[in-house]
Amino acid sequence: MANADHVSVKVFSLNCWGIRFLSKHCPQRYRMLGEMLCKEEHDVVLLQEVWSEKDYLYLKKKLAGCHPHSHYFKSGVIGSGLAIFTKHRIHDTFLYRYSLNGYPYMAHHGDWFGGKAVGMAVLNINNLMANIYITHLHAEYSREKDSYLPHRVVQAWELQQFVRHTSAGADLIILGGDLNMHPQDLGNRLLMSYTGLRDSYLETAQFDGCEDGMTLIADNPFISKKELAPFEKGIRIDYILFKGSSRTDILCDFMSTTKGFVPGHPFPYSDHEALTAHLMLKSRIPAEVGSDQPKAQESHAGKLAELVDILTEARTEVKVGLHCAERMRYTAARTGVMGLALLFLELAIAAVPWLALGAEQPFPRISFYLLASLCFAILLTTFLLYVFYTMELKSLQGAEDQMRLAVSSLQEKLRGFPVAQPHNALRRPPEGHEPSALDPEE
Amino acid sequence: MANADHVSVKVFSLNCWGIRFLSKHCPQRYRMLGEMLCKEEHDVVLLQEVWSEKDYLYLKKKLAGCHPHSHYFKSGVIGSGLAIFTKHRIHDTFLYRYSLNGYPYMAHHGDWFGGKAVGMAVLNINNLMANIYITHLHAEYSREKDSYLPHRVVQAWELQQFVRHTSAGADLIILGGDLNMHPQDLGNRLLMSYTGLRDSYLETAQFDGCEDGMTLIADNPFISKKELAPFEKGIRIDYILFKGSSRTDILCDFMSTTKGFVPGHPFPYSDHEALTAHLMLKSRIPAEVGSDQPKAQESHAGKLAELVDILTEARTEVKVGLHCAERMRYTAARTGVMGLALLFLELAIAAVPWLALGAEQPFPRISFYLLASLCFAILLTTFLLYVFYTMELKSLQGAEDQMRLAVSSLQEKLRGFPVAQPHNALRRPPEGHEPSALDPEE
Repeated sequence: MANADHVSVKVFSLNCWGIRFLSKHCPQRYRMLGEMLCKEEHDVVLLQEVWSEKDYLYLKKKLAGCHPHSHYFKSGVIGSGLAIFTKHRIHDTFLYRYSLNGYPYMAHHGDWFGGKAVGMAVLNINNLMANIYITHLHAEYSREKDSYLPHRVVQAWELQQFVRHTSAGADLIILGGDLNMHPQDLGNRLLMSYTGLRDSYLETAQFDGCEDGMTLIADNPFISKKELAPFEKGIRIDYILFKGSSRTDILCDFMSTTKGFVPGHPFPYSDHEALTAHLMLKSRIPAEVGSDQPKAQESHAGKLAELVDILTEARTEVKVGLHCAERMRYTAARTGVMGLALLFLELAIAAVPWLALGAEQPFPRISFYLLASLCFAILLTTFLLYVFYTMELKSLQGAEDQMRLAVSSLQEKLRGFPVAQPHNALRRPPEGHEPSALDPEE
Repeated sequence: MANADHVSVKVFSLNCWGIRFLSKHCPQRYRMLGEMLCKEEHDVVLLQEVWSEKDYLYLKKKLAGCHPHSHYFKSGVIGSGLAIFTKHRIHDTFLYRYSLNGYPYMAHHGDWFGGKAVGMAVLNINNLMANIYITHLHAEYSREKDSYLPHRVVQAWELQQFVRHTSAGADLIILGGDLNMHPQDLGNRLLMSYTGLRDSYLETAQFDGCEDGMTLIADNPFISKKELAPFEKGIRIDYILFKGSSRTDILCDFMSTTKGFVPGHPFPYSDHEALTAHLMLKSRIPAEVGSDQPKAQESHAGKLAELVDILTEARTEVKVGLHCAERMRYTAARTGVMGLALLFLELAIAAVPWLALGAEQPFPRISFYLLASLCFAILLTTFLLYVFYTMELKSLQGAEDQMRLAVSSLQEKLRGFPVAQPHNALRRPPEGHEPSALDPEE
């Protein structure tokens, strides 16, 4: 696998579509997957939508020989669906649950119950500290009228924050998963420019797979062509991203996807295509860093300016979400008030015969009780919705606040804010990472 | 504030007890606090329980001159209550919401609605990158029968994960807040030994304040002595913790707490005492690191062993929480099934006259409808509780899984696992931080 100076890391990622009893041929597909993984012996296997812990345990047993180390990230009601299998010892894990993830009453979409999150595992690959991230963002059910867009943008925002802040000590970073975003989507641009992560499909020296690296394709028998419209052939929403550090260079030698079928089997592993990336690690000579200073600074300023634009766009999207959540909360409150008014009205009518003794009860008892139950049901439901929308609002506002602060911090840097100049004896030495737009001040 | 080689940082922390219209003298106390903060000019001010955004905005305006930079962390239904004010520009912020935080139906305790979290702000203090953390953990309402203990232990676990994983690039770390844990409590030991954070009260060269550094004292007029029992004089549950790095030494010169009253004012700032710590930063000479190797290794092994013990204790506590959550979920499910059975029984009885034509309706319509409403109410409530307890279970299981993995990773290290030996050309240079028990392998 490695010589003294070169280490190769084979990474696999697949959205398994593992809803027990609902997804087609689930047990057979897991069996196929397990056999293939045993044979291929990837260094790191990142699986999404492993919704049942039983299936995770099946794979764990099956892969015990080739991938002795594994972790299943638990979250939400059903679980995050995220699982990692690896040849290398996992030293540490950490899970970040996204603050926004759809609505519990959209049960047919199910995302809320999945408790979407990003999981991190710290591996030691040939004495290099590797931070491996796996995630699955909220699905896009309609491209034209995507009511979950603000949620997904906030998820992308939190994902980049998590990756950026937890990876300062790492020699290399690998992020794999189903981002549910097209390459040029806002959230994707936010993630890539903020973290400096590179897309293995775009960077690979050699590629074998679907046209344009697509991972959800019309040729897959589990896909209904209707769902893909207007993208007739398919879309690219699954990724393997990577990044080195000042100590490690990282390149993608080869990348492949499955093509909607698996030779020798009646159906593919999943409704998504599987991704494999062969990454090459090389120790970096410190002198390489910091050469070409003026040019590097210029391009750095360009990146900062681009990031400000992306952030402005993201803030607009979050604001759209804010307005929507406010409207929903207002509707819930108004409905609640109407329920309360109805209840009072009913009580007032019921009180008439009680006050004017002898007068007859104006409406039959049954409808009285039915109406009262209805009022209570309305009050309870609207109360729960009000609480939920308030939490949604807080999360959206929080993300918007953080983005505003980030924009102003970037703008200060662009202006060449004096804090940026190295003039103090206590100044810290250069930071460990490849340049990303928000690396420490320069 | 600084010469070329020494930087002093003044940190302030206070739980403000800021429940509008419920906490006593709230506006007056905020006014007092604002005036004092303007005068004292701390570098970093960490406030908890600022439950109303209006109060945050009042302080923001009041402190605009002395603390031009601030951030209010939003979370939950009411907000996390966490606010930071500082002299130094905030470059970045990040919020981690704890996965467990009490129960929504314990509304009189209110913790669930507060959305407890840990907030991080990245500051540039004299060209040092400072990671400032602020948090507030779940309250302890009864020491003898603390049903929230598993939740607080998981919060402490997540707090140490967050601090440890996000601080690798920082020159110094400061954590302030109301941990709701006594110094020797399990969660506190977990936090301190895992992160290597040091307690300013224990480390300070000079101290002025309450006996034993207590922060919730019987002499405070807002405290009912009953609540404190069996700790007659008070308890220490608020902290300012700190840690340097391989590049920065950090010491606590002076620490103080308020003493239950504020000279010249009729009442104190809050029901908690305020903490102030004067920290001194000094650039570290790299040669200092790594001296005394054998001795250091021995103490490192001792620390690892201690950490394994603490983790084992924490796992036990989380398992207690697991059993409790499982029991609660079982009760919810059983009650739900009973509600469903009652509904079917009722429907069966109602169906009798319909099947046996001519037979009379066996029970009056009103009670029929009332009973049906009751059944539906039971079903809805138990369904919501079932979902909630399932999420609680997933979070507890997730924490337990992570702890188990951490224990096995620590034990491998203790055994002198071969991965730990530096033998590969790609080996990374020594990591930036002061030793903590989980620093990269040695």
